[in-house]
Amino acid sequence: MAEMVNVAVDAMGGDNAPAEIVKGAVEAINADKRVKVFLAGKEPVLKEELKKYSYDAQQLEIVHAPEVIETGEPPVMAIRRKKDSSIVKCMYLVKEGECDALVSAGSTGAVLVGGQVIVGRIKGVERPPLAPIIPNIEGVSLLLDCGANVDARPSQLLQFARMGSIYMESVIGVKNPRVGLVNIGVEEEKGNALTKEAYPLLKNCPEINFIGNVEARDIPFGKADVLVCEAFAGNVVLKMLEGVSDALVKKIKAGMMSSLRSKIGALLVKPALKQTLKDFSTEAYGGAPLLGLNGLVVKTHGSSKSVEIKNSILQCIAFKEQKINQKIKEQLVLED
Amino acid sequence: MAEMVNVAVDAMGGDNAPAEIVKGAVEAINADKRVKVFLAGKEPVLKEELKKYSYDAQQLEIVHAPEVIETGEPPVMAIRRKKDSSIVKCMYLVKEGECDALVSAGSTGAVLVGGQVIVGRIKGVERPPLAPIIPNIEGVSLLLDCGANVDARPSQLLQFARMGSIYMESVIGVKNPRVGLVNIGVEEEKGNALTKEAYPLLKNCPEINFIGNVEARDIPFGKADVLVCEAFAGNVVLKMLEGVSDALVKKIKAGMMSSLRSKIGALLVKPALKQTLKDFSTEAYGGAPLLGLNGLVVKTHGSSKSVEIKNSILQCIAFKEQKINQKIKEQLVLED
Repeated sequence: MAEMVNVAVDAMGGDNAPAEIVKGAVEAINADKRVKVFLAGKEPVLKEELKKYSYDAQQLEIVHAPEVIETGEPPVMAIRRKKDSSIVKCMYLVKEGECDALVSAGSTGAVLVGGQVIVGRIKGVERPPLAPIIPNIEGVSLLLDCGANVDARPSQLLQFARMGSIYMESVIGVKNPRVGLVNIGVEEEKGNALTKEAYPLLKNCPEINFIGNVEARDIPFGKADVLVCEAFAGNVVLKMLEGVSDALVKKIKAGMMSSLRSKIGALLVKPALKQTLKDFSTEAYGGAPLLGLNGLVVKTHGSSKSVEIKNSILQCIAFKEQKINQKIKEQLVLED
Repeated sequence: MAEMVNVAVDAMGGDNAPAEIVKGAVEAINADKRVKVFLAGKEPVLKEELKKYSYDAQQLEIVHAPEVIETGEPPVMAIRRKKDSSIVKCMYLVKEGECDALVSAGSTGAVLVGGQVIVGRIKGVERPPLAPIIPNIEGVSLLLDCGANVDARPSQLLQFARMGSIYMESVIGVKNPRVGLVNIGVEEEKGNALTKEAYPLLKNCPEINFIGNVEARDIPFGKADVLVCEAFAGNVVLKMLEGVSDALVKKIKAGMMSSLRSKIGALLVKPALKQTLKDFSTEAYGGAPLLGLNGLVVKTHGSSKSVEIKNSILQCIAFKEQKINQKIKEQLVLED
């Protein structure tokens, strides 16, 4: 029998904690025998929630964590002081090798800081990028970096491209993923100081399939599988994707309510529309990995429901079995 | 009788030149007696086009321009060498005061370079921003800078905010426009070096109605009337808006064709949907002004049809009558 994949789950993080997180954890272990979940949170609360479900008790362990990090708390301070919070407990489970990965829907700041400070970077990784999967008209792309650290260096963009390619190929299953540099024009000489310096580094890297600059206009059409940028641009891309989709859908729905004719039409197109919008939602694709750490840290949306938690936990199987971190280490040693 | 507004129109620039440009110019003069158009292009070609229409001959003058700047030409070189191209002729008409404004659907690079090199900046303006009007769910916002010069300084962002506020209030008619700084979080301390330095400058400027940081997610919901950012971020915002809208609409249309039921529904919602999409198209709102020059330079989409040309020409009336440049000069003198 293959080795178990141990995943620490922050049961107290996110808008729908603990109910949806616990539900997602149970769904994950019931879906795959290879997973064991370490559920961190207030023990009495979790026990109460778990009564609702049936599952193999060998696949779940409660890790008591009486403290809670509030949304407004400065992450660095919170991580340092609240050793008994669910998120910090999860971080230490990964750091000490008891777990392979952790999944949290809690404060992004706490996850990013805890990942770097407690779990720690793989030697040679300059900056661990947060890499959400985003939908496009053809499928999905990996967008990195969307983290909290802006103003990246060109050498960091190259590392993002290499780690992103490994993840996209081995975890998401896209062979020889096309890497694009997010830029304001397609020609090599276009862009700001960062993209101009990063372009030749990407172009001359034999380990990636670099296809050149990608304009934001082409991102939703799936022009590249791995989209490389620094975090300010990454945040704008991600948030525009979410904002424009939501605004346009709201406007289309209001437009459909404008006459009796269109109201009837709206009823008829509703099921098809619903499926389309589901495919194009950023929430449909599990969590965003924070790459380049000594273990996998997955940040899911604060609004995550059980399905996103479940998918994020199951994502960890491929991450372990495909030896992503070993591949990252091998590539980064070559780089020195 | 009020003074005429003289507008130079680049009849040879854009994908649909000269037919749609000439048509738009005629539509503009027929719509408003205050406008006189100076139509620059190859005289025989323009005369042939103009035969299709009836208009007051006193409102239109042909400016013969035998040369053409091709799409691929490096703009700086083209502007310098092709003195007899339609775009350069238009630039000189504005520089020499014969025209108040110019409208071009030609190469963005040539318009940006020509605007700065030939028309010239107002004294005190550090960098003239390209400021397209973008749709949001409530109406429109002005996004600046979307030009070719990236890596702006904080003091330039402050100027963008002030010029944008004047334009939005006096030309578009939004009283006391809300100015937002495009950023990756709403708190004052969020962002990159540029936004962190620009924030206090904007906050302490009494001439603008600064509402703080605006995340990209809130842009399509109309959270601010004037959106301030440097050109790399502005380009990503603009192109994501266009790309996500187009991709989502394509996907929705395909989804509606997936069953007989939804096909019938699609027929019924079509007129309502069409209006909604028209409201949310970046092409519906005339051209983007290049602010801070000694005259108004308006860049319209390369794909402009007559209606966009017409609207862009008519926009120039408010620009002149509201004395935008005088207001910009007054504010920028105060600044020193």
